[in-house]
Amino acid sequence: MSTLGLIEYAEATPEVRAIYDDIIATRKSDYINNFWKAMAHDPALLRRTWQALKEIMGPGALDPLTKELIYIAVSVTNSCHYCIASHTASAFAKGMTNDQFMELQAVVGMANQTNKLVTGYQVEIDEKFQPPLKR
Amino acid sequence: MSTLGLIEYAEATPEVRAIYDDIIATRKSDYINNFWKAMAHDPALLRRTWQALKEIMGPGALDPLTKELIYIAVSVTNSCHYCIASHTASAFAKGMTNDQFMELQAVVGMANQTNKLVTGYQVEIDEKFQPPLKR
Amino acid sequence: MSTLGLIEYAEATPEVRAIYDDIIATRKSDYINNFWKAMAHDPALLRRTWQALKEIMGPGALDPLTKELIYIAVSVTNSCHYCIASHTASAFAKGMTNDQFMELQAVVGMANQTNKLVTGYQVEIDEKFQPPLKR
Amino acid sequence: MSTLGLIEYAEATPEVRAIYDDIIATRKSDYINNFWKAMAHDPALLRRTWQALKEIMGPGALDPLTKELIYIAVSVTNSCHYCIASHTASAFAKGMTNDQFMELQAVVGMANQTNKLVTGYQVEIDEKFQPPLKR
Amino acid sequence: MSTLGLIEYAEATPEVRAIYDDIIATRKSDYINNFWKAMAHDPALLRRTWQALKEIMGPGALDPLTKELIYIAVSVTNSCHYCIASHTASAFAKGMTNDQFMELQAVVGMANQTNKLVTGYQVEIDEKFQPPLKR
Amino acid sequence: MSTLGLIEYAEATPEVRAIYDDIIATRKSDYINNFWKAMAHDPALLRRTWQALKEIMGPGALDPLTKELIYIAVSVTNSCHYCIASHTASAFAKGMTNDQFMELQAVVGMANQTNKLVTGYQVEIDEKFQPPLKR
Repeated sequence: MSTLGLIEYAEATPEVRAIYDDIIATRKSDYINNFWKAMAHDPALLRRTWQALKEIMGPGALDPLTKELIYIAVSVTNSCHYCIASHTASAFAKGMTNDQFMELQAVVGMANQTNKLVTGYQVEIDEKFQPPLKR
Repeated sequence: MSTLGLIEYAEATPEVRAIYDDIIATRKSDYINNFWKAMAHDPALLRRTWQALKEIMGPGALDPLTKELIYIAVSVTNSCHYCIASHTASAFAKGMTNDQFMELQAVVGMANQTNKLVTGYQVEIDEKFQPPLKR
Repeated sequence: MSTLGLIEYAEATPEVRAIYDDIIATRKSDYINNFWKAMAHDPALLRRTWQALKEIMGPGALDPLTKELIYIAVSVTNSCHYCIASHTASAFAKGMTNDQFMELQAVVGMANQTNKLVTGYQVEIDEKFQPPLKR
Repeated sequence: MSTLGLIEYAEATPEVRAIYDDIIATRKSDYINNFWKAMAHDPALLRRTWQALKEIMGPGALDPLTKELIYIAVSVTNSCHYCIASHTASAFAKGMTNDQFMELQAVVGMANQTNKLVTGYQVEIDEKFQPPLKR
Repeated sequence: MSTLGLIEYAEATPEVRAIYDDIIATRKSDYINNFWKAMAHDPALLRRTWQALKEIMGPGALDPLTKELIYIAVSVTNSCHYCIASHTASAFAKGMTNDQFMELQAVVGMANQTNKLVTGYQVEIDEKFQPPLKR
Repeated sequence: MSTLGLIEYAEATPEVRAIYDDIIATRKSDYINNFWKAMAHDPALLRRTWQALKEIMGPGALDPLTKELIYIAVSVTNSCHYCIASHTASAFAKGMTNDQFMELQAVVGMANQTNKLVTGYQVEIDEKFQPPLKR
């Protein structure tokens, strides 16, 4: 379900179907998840979001699994249950081990704790950490 | 500065100084940043937080740099300026390249966007992403 | 459901019932949603919240539909599922079109993304954007 | 300032300069704000973000000022000081009156309050607000 | 400073001045902090906010200091630097000790950590914690 | 349920069982809630989290019920439904009255509102609230 419903492949316009086809080809799986079927009501948003995701999440200076871990860290911090569920499944599919999953959660928990300790104690940023940090 | 002020090494109790010494030895740097000097008012908190950080952020199933990237992702999502500044400096010190920094930010931005798109469209979690995902 | 249960019209005290009556009269609908029935345990909170909402959400320098869009933008950013559901329904009832709904979500997604990009890159505020901006 | 510094027009690559030129032409102002100069280290991000912003924030089913108000609502909820400063300036430039500014803030404050009241009381979503709400 | 500037007592309208007088009388201090001087541009908001604050933060089933601690806990979690600064000062003025301040921060840090651990592990709510919990 | 499933007492390792035993002894109840059963996949995390919670949430400068109220305030602000449900149940078990529950929610709602009003109006921190506030 979704506010405007989900657009299935069979009922999609050619414009949307072309994006679905690219998702299928890129992921080597014919499963289109609900997120895309909900976004498909706005083909421009669907196109932009898929293009950006494809560009950003592929191999680069960081490997795809590391990027999934970062995605999960953000999603947990935002309490986005859909994204936690889908990206955790995706990370396991990309080879995340149980130990990596657990270390990820420990780091996320720790970071959320110290973020608030430093904020609550109103700690000023050390001179040496001030930007720019350009290398 | 900090709500209760900062406790410098010279004025620290032996209990606090022992933790400062461990921070110095572990990090191979005699610089103690403001966060620890602020927490030092509560020696039990200082001890617990440093012990946990040492256990969690060291090498394991994930390497220390990956953990720093995750830490930054959380800190950016929480708008914790102190933690962004200190962990970005720390990640560069651990070898993060400019390209890795930029890919990290792109993933964090993307995740924050899709977290909200999926929430705003009220998309239901796909059956296949439901936990448990135990391997 | 709700932590303290829901107070139905029939079992409400005269004080609560008077507020329910005003909600019904103002909205021209005899449907009282769960939010109010949960708040009714604290009649002072119920009164204050309803009074403020009535004053704020009515016509003014901004029209009521624009206010609903703003309400949804906040609720999505906070991941408040109840508020997203109720205010999205309310916005449609006030005439929001599907296209307006979709543009709203695109703006909310974009804003959440750039909020984090600017934070992660630690960008300093431009001199010319500094308050006061009084006209 | 920014983590990697700011890239001024004079030192920009042709690829970045072309985007700066489009920003200048679109906004009818030769002022490039710090956000873009910080993003310019990652030309692909700069291009994607500017393109998306241009597509999303222009006239459509919602007018540009309404979109700025939504942008501010998100930025306030996220405590993004840069975005609050820049988009508030931008909204005033697009004709937002003081009264509209004040009503916007009142709605944002109210929404943040009721978001938490409904969450703290654990209020269940009314059957009639359940998606899909497709018109 | 503030977006619309600050309205000092001397330049305030009679309506605003009456509220300033009530703040002064209630707090037994002639200091009006910036928050109220900024809100004063919108006298209806100023009145509503001050009235609600006076009703909510006074003695009741919870004592005023406990309410300040709760206020700080929310403000830290939201990274609201103004509110952290003002309510921490206010709590100290109401008798909060350094030890209470430190325990507060430890609880806030801990809660933020476990909030995210439970979210990241996607833990389902125990049957016995389900509302209603009416006593 | 949980991403990695729940570890019941009967299937737990001796290391995990020892912690479960301590939870049971400390709480004087043989009910182990899902949170601990999910964390048990990572015994080091389980141990650290339980030890910290025991140290922090016990009697000190603040009483245990006040600490639960603070925990709930954070959990509501973070929209952590599991923590809201479990700590609200726990607070009632520790003697929280309905009136205390309702005042807590009113303060949390108010704080979330003024946090955003002050942020949206870009109010500068008063000189007199600046840290350090050391007593």
